[in-house]
Amino acid sequence: MNFELELKKHTDEVEEMISRYLPAEDGFQKTVMEAMNYSFLAGGKRLRPMLMLETYRMFGGKSKVIEPFMAAMEMIHTSSLIHDDLPAMDNDEYRRGRKTTHIVYGEAMAILAGDGLLLFAFETASKAFMTEPKNPNIGRAIEVLASKSGIYGMVGGQTVDVELEGKPIPKEKLDFIYRLKTGALMEASMMIGAILAGATDSEVKRIAQVAANVGLAFQIEDDILDVVSTTEELGKPVGSDDKNHKTTYVTIEGVDAAAKEVETLSERAVEMLDSFVVKNEFLTELLFSLIHRKK
Amino acid sequence: MNFELELKKHTDEVEEMISRYLPAEDGFQKTVMEAMNYSFLAGGKRLRPMLMLETYRMFGGKSKVIEPFMAAMEMIHTSSLIHDDLPAMDNDEYRRGRKTTHIVYGEAMAILAGDGLLLFAFETASKAFMTEPKNPNIGRAIEVLASKSGIYGMVGGQTVDVELEGKPIPKEKLDFIYRLKTGALMEASMMIGAILAGATDSEVKRIAQVAANVGLAFQIEDDILDVVSTTEELGKPVGSDDKNHKTTYVTIEGVDAAAKEVETLSERAVEMLDSFVVKNEFLTELLFSLIHRKK
Repeated sequence: MNFELELKKHTDEVEEMISRYLPAEDGFQKTVMEAMNYSFLAGGKRLRPMLMLETYRMFGGKSKVIEPFMAAMEMIHTSSLIHDDLPAMDNDEYRRGRKTTHIVYGEAMAILAGDGLLLFAFETASKAFMTEPKNPNIGRAIEVLASKSGIYGMVGGQTVDVELEGKPIPKEKLDFIYRLKTGALMEASMMIGAILAGATDSEVKRIAQVAANVGLAFQIEDDILDVVSTTEELGKPVGSDDKNHKTTYVTIEGVDAAAKEVETLSERAVEMLDSFVVKNEFLTELLFSLIHRKK
Repeated sequence: MNFELELKKHTDEVEEMISRYLPAEDGFQKTVMEAMNYSFLAGGKRLRPMLMLETYRMFGGKSKVIEPFMAAMEMIHTSSLIHDDLPAMDNDEYRRGRKTTHIVYGEAMAILAGDGLLLFAFETASKAFMTEPKNPNIGRAIEVLASKSGIYGMVGGQTVDVELEGKPIPKEKLDFIYRLKTGALMEASMMIGAILAGATDSEVKRIAQVAANVGLAFQIEDDILDVVSTTEELGKPVGSDDKNHKTTYVTIEGVDAAAKEVETLSERAVEMLDSFVVKNEFLTELLFSLIHRKK
């Protein structure tokens, strides 16, 4: 399998599936729809919906019920980027080489576009009830979507991140931020894929742990690359964490210990994934690529 | 029936029901929970959950399945107030005599508290699946909750309101703002009450129209009171719309025509409500009180 080629194919597939759920830009309120779509279509790896789809396939899922949830997940992720970029938060003017939403549409509209995406995510996900009104897993999937995005998930992680900005961060809190701010949506993605495919409770639990380990390893790898990579390899300035006095796994415990943690987490994830009878080779490669990457 | 006394009793009942669903304030992320609860518990008439509960009762609903939806509705409403008060939006420092959320907790936390409430609303509503996993109406109720709050409802109305701030507003757009920004959540509340009680599609449609008429009448009455009331009666400064060059029904068509519209909408609502075989005397009085009020 040529992974890079496969990845490109899968990304295009996911892109096509999720873009179909975007709102039409019409009505007196069309500006908010434009702002939502501008942000949603700014690119990105579509990692979360891809993890969801591939986990769904791994557990034998075959219907279209997964699609609105894939789109919903990416909408929630996009909403968090819009609000994160606001002047009161990270105050970023560019993301992925394009002007951020509040720069193009103004702050008020960016706040509304973020809210609009969160709510449209649930409007979209609940459309799954129409195609499969008697599927009891849809309710559980919605619950996971909401809880892992909210105060016990992503928003909880953002909260601690915001509160500790510019301050030294103890390791247990850095761990909390990494697990919730980024990890929670990866967990939710794989859990929802498993739930909608009809996996057992124990399988859903174990797949969540796979995602949690990969998510954390992914974040620690980010810290390491900022130190050991070159600007050319990374495609963005290296050493920025040190320059910004940012607390990372590397500043807390050094490159070697951080690299060892990545290895441990990675091994644990691979072991767990191996313990399933069902397999999805592409998913395994994808998870592996997230941990062992050069950028 | 002494309406004022009944209203007080019902408000206390609703308050107790919905407060139970608030998050505990603990964990590293407890500040966002504090900010959410601070805003939620700032008071208010609890009109939306009350409309939901009474409509549910009108259609014979008797279970606890309505409660998480009542709490969810008030969370969404509260979220919209927090974000509306932000400097980039209305820039309000006080609401109901208390400092607004961003004044107390800072802007970043206010943004997160609003997001947290939106997501916690759906986490809370989806809890209804646990008590009644086979109730097919829960999915429909979640869909209404999301769509009437989002870009085709409340957020849609806020969008037009934000875009036209300080500009003259043509009547069809003012109508759009009134129907969506405030009306949509009242519609959703009554629709969800009916849906969860097992009302037919046609009944849900008609109850939505009752809510739409009352919601619009309520807003137009607001415009009229600003002109014809005294500061003492209203409990807040009168004439502020004129002073702020705000477009209202009164500035567009004058007090008399506006009052006539309120009458027409009110009559239509009463007629529709009368057409139902099922009755709820308190709900009828409540809707009437919203239209014919002195403050």
